[in-house]
Amino acid sequence: MVDIATRVWNHKWKIDPIVRSLIDTDFYKLLMCQSVFRNRPDTTVTFSLINRTSTVRLAELIDEGELREQLDHIRSLSLTRGESTWMRGNTFYGKRQMFTPAFMDWFEGVRLPPYELEKKDGQYELTFEGKWPEVMLWEIPALAVLMELRGRAVLSAMGRFELQVLYARAMTKLWEKVERLRHVEGLRIADFGTRRRHSFLWQDWAVQAMLEGLGPSFIGTSNCLIAKNRDLEAIGTNAHELPMVYAALAEGDAALARAPYDVLSDWHEEHDGNLRIILPDTYGTEGFLARAPDWLAGWTGIRIDSGDPAEGAETAIRWWQARGEDPRQKLVIFSDGLDVERIEELSARFSGRVKVSFGWGTLLTNDFRGLAPGDALAPFSLVCKAVAAEGRPTVKLSDNPRKAMGPEGEIARYKRVFGVGEQVVREVVV
Amino acid sequence: MVDIATRVWNHKWKIDPIVRSLIDTDFYKLLMCQSVFRNRPDTTVTFSLINRTSTVRLAELIDEGELREQLDHIRSLSLTRGESTWMRGNTFYGKRQMFTPAFMDWFEGVRLPPYELEKKDGQYELTFEGKWPEVMLWEIPALAVLMELRGRAVLSAMGRFELQVLYARAMTKLWEKVERLRHVEGLRIADFGTRRRHSFLWQDWAVQAMLEGLGPSFIGTSNCLIAKNRDLEAIGTNAHELPMVYAALAEGDAALARAPYDVLSDWHEEHDGNLRIILPDTYGTEGFLARAPDWLAGWTGIRIDSGDPAEGAETAIRWWQARGEDPRQKLVIFSDGLDVERIEELSARFSGRVKVSFGWGTLLTNDFRGLAPGDALAPFSLVCKAVAAEGRPTVKLSDNPRKAMGPEGEIARYKRVFGVGEQVVREVVV
Repeated sequence: MVDIATRVWNHKWKIDPIVRSLIDTDFYKLLMCQSVFRNRPDTTVTFSLINRTSTVRLAELIDEGELREQLDHIRSLSLTRGESTWMRGNTFYGKRQMFTPAFMDWFEGVRLPPYELEKKDGQYELTFEGKWPEVMLWEIPALAVLMELRGRAVLSAMGRFELQVLYARAMTKLWEKVERLRHVEGLRIADFGTRRRHSFLWQDWAVQAMLEGLGPSFIGTSNCLIAKNRDLEAIGTNAHELPMVYAALAEGDAALARAPYDVLSDWHEEHDGNLRIILPDTYGTEGFLARAPDWLAGWTGIRIDSGDPAEGAETAIRWWQARGEDPRQKLVIFSDGLDVERIEELSARFSGRVKVSFGWGTLLTNDFRGLAPGDALAPFSLVCKAVAAEGRPTVKLSDNPRKAMGPEGEIARYKRVFGVGEQVVREVVV
Repeated sequence: MVDIATRVWNHKWKIDPIVRSLIDTDFYKLLMCQSVFRNRPDTTVTFSLINRTSTVRLAELIDEGELREQLDHIRSLSLTRGESTWMRGNTFYGKRQMFTPAFMDWFEGVRLPPYELEKKDGQYELTFEGKWPEVMLWEIPALAVLMELRGRAVLSAMGRFELQVLYARAMTKLWEKVERLRHVEGLRIADFGTRRRHSFLWQDWAVQAMLEGLGPSFIGTSNCLIAKNRDLEAIGTNAHELPMVYAALAEGDAALARAPYDVLSDWHEEHDGNLRIILPDTYGTEGFLARAPDWLAGWTGIRIDSGDPAEGAETAIRWWQARGEDPRQKLVIFSDGLDVERIEELSARFSGRVKVSFGWGTLLTNDFRGLAPGDALAPFSLVCKAVAAEGRPTVKLSDNPRKAMGPEGEIARYKRVFGVGEQVVREVVV
């Protein structure tokens, strides 16, 4: 058993690099990477780091040399034999050979492309540009590196004993959440917390806590390395980057309006069952569902990732009913800003009406709120997004204007094309 | 840094014997041992284990073989060279050569005498008989062994992860107490928790927590091994066994009435300063102080170990005033059933009126209440007392009838001789 406090105290960062494997990333990245590799392998995209919590001045907290060291380390990683064997031979979502031999041959040789790093206004501008299937692999490790380096900067000022008490408190806090979740009947929950985790060791501990405390209610982790090491299900489907890039590439408004469905049409060809999960909020859930083709209503479920989660689920239920589908056969995956209370509420409200499942992120793997002076270890809202494709800016609207991104003019055009009206502002916690 | 959960999980008891040194005991035992060695070396006494918490059925929880193994291990211990050097060369209570060469020569050769062990009514009857200076050394290790073996029996059923969470919770709980104590102005507090500690490693952790959290307000530990290893003050003076044995040896009522003062008269010859601490409650505090010779009022302070602690301190203050002493120059040491709240209350009430100091025992080193199912790790009230001297039974009255011990007829005689009337019953927590 790892004594995290001691490991942290030892400051032997070389034995604990932040990202220690190419598959220390979310499973949906690998699925999307394969889809992109198949459908849009030569598209040039740009990913950029965006810190929504501007009060956390990362460039003042994190040493640039250390940041470069960690990023360079990630560029040195390639798929190990054991990792390749796992990806080729393991069953994912009940299916063998989820990853095709052609994709695996390519993935075995892949290295992460170069990065651009600059400081501006107390923040780091970190940008990745290149072929989509390669560049997209930067998102999760880049976030994990920034998040953990900020934590390490705070931890390095703490004494050995303070560290032990810190982790004792964090463990107690997390375990109390797990104990509360035990009482949620029919719970199905997965770890989605890689990108904003406190650290790799901590995420690994959190996964063990969930496993020990929740048994079969804990259905797996989005983190492939942890899933592999601990023999768990790797969980995930697809994310906003697919419709965002497809949309940016669309020529004219008609093609733009069709783009989000083109994404899912490609996905429909590649996957079935529990991998057919709609992520409807990129350009507004209401409009997306209203204009969706009928074959989409036949999909297994929906993931609610912004806006009021209960409203999002109600919208989905009404939509399925309108399309003659039985919502009780459908899966609703909640994955936005979850903590125990919201999980309890959503579970109570929707169990029996739909199949409910949770992807629990930041407040599972990084709830260090209140544990350090000045709350210096509280998680913050850091994202790494596809901001351009073939030189054209991407746009995201989401069901919460606080999560919208893109140039103003383009946002207005997208709103018009997708018929998005007034939106309710919700605080972005993490 | 020791990862206690892992050590406990490893079950390598051989590398973690419960008592690992002859000086893994309370400092006052060594002081009293020297006093007895000088004044009553040939007295034969009997010590017995008494479990006041009869609901904890030790003989059903603890394997007899394991118990014997631990007790036999203690009998194999003798003073190491480093320990001898520390006792001979260290400064205790500001004084060099606290232990005389004659005592040290004898102590270096001492081994603990045999024990008698039987099971009866779900309890262990554990008895030690022999020369007082040797037999008395059994008290603290015998208690620590029983207390920890009971804990180990509970821990052995726990998984690796449960253990980690258990200790994380215990650390958090203890650290929160330490943080509260930081706000107690002028606090002076020592660890008195060896006898009923959860384990040696845990006591050692608790001491480090106090040291880190309280700085100079933490004045030391009663545990000689920890004091030596961590370069802390060893704290302690004298205990009830002295007046109990002196009283049992007294011929007739007049000698009996004088016995408690004879003890302190011997002590007066041997010690000065902060070691001149009266323990007045063996046969009732009120009467003891009322009949005390004037030279006792000149002693440095008093230790309150039973009854209502505030009343005990008020009684002492009135007594000093009646004897023309300035209570503000006197030290009151509270050592009975302390936890944070009582420490705060007593400190608020008496600081400025007397010098206040605390000897914090069980709820410092074994507050595992509420941390295991069925509260199976909660501390309980186990004592090991001198029950006979030269074949005569000993008696203790104390300021709380729940703590009284001895044959009924003798208790009645002692009450008459020492003029003890009605006493208020107080629940014995630990």
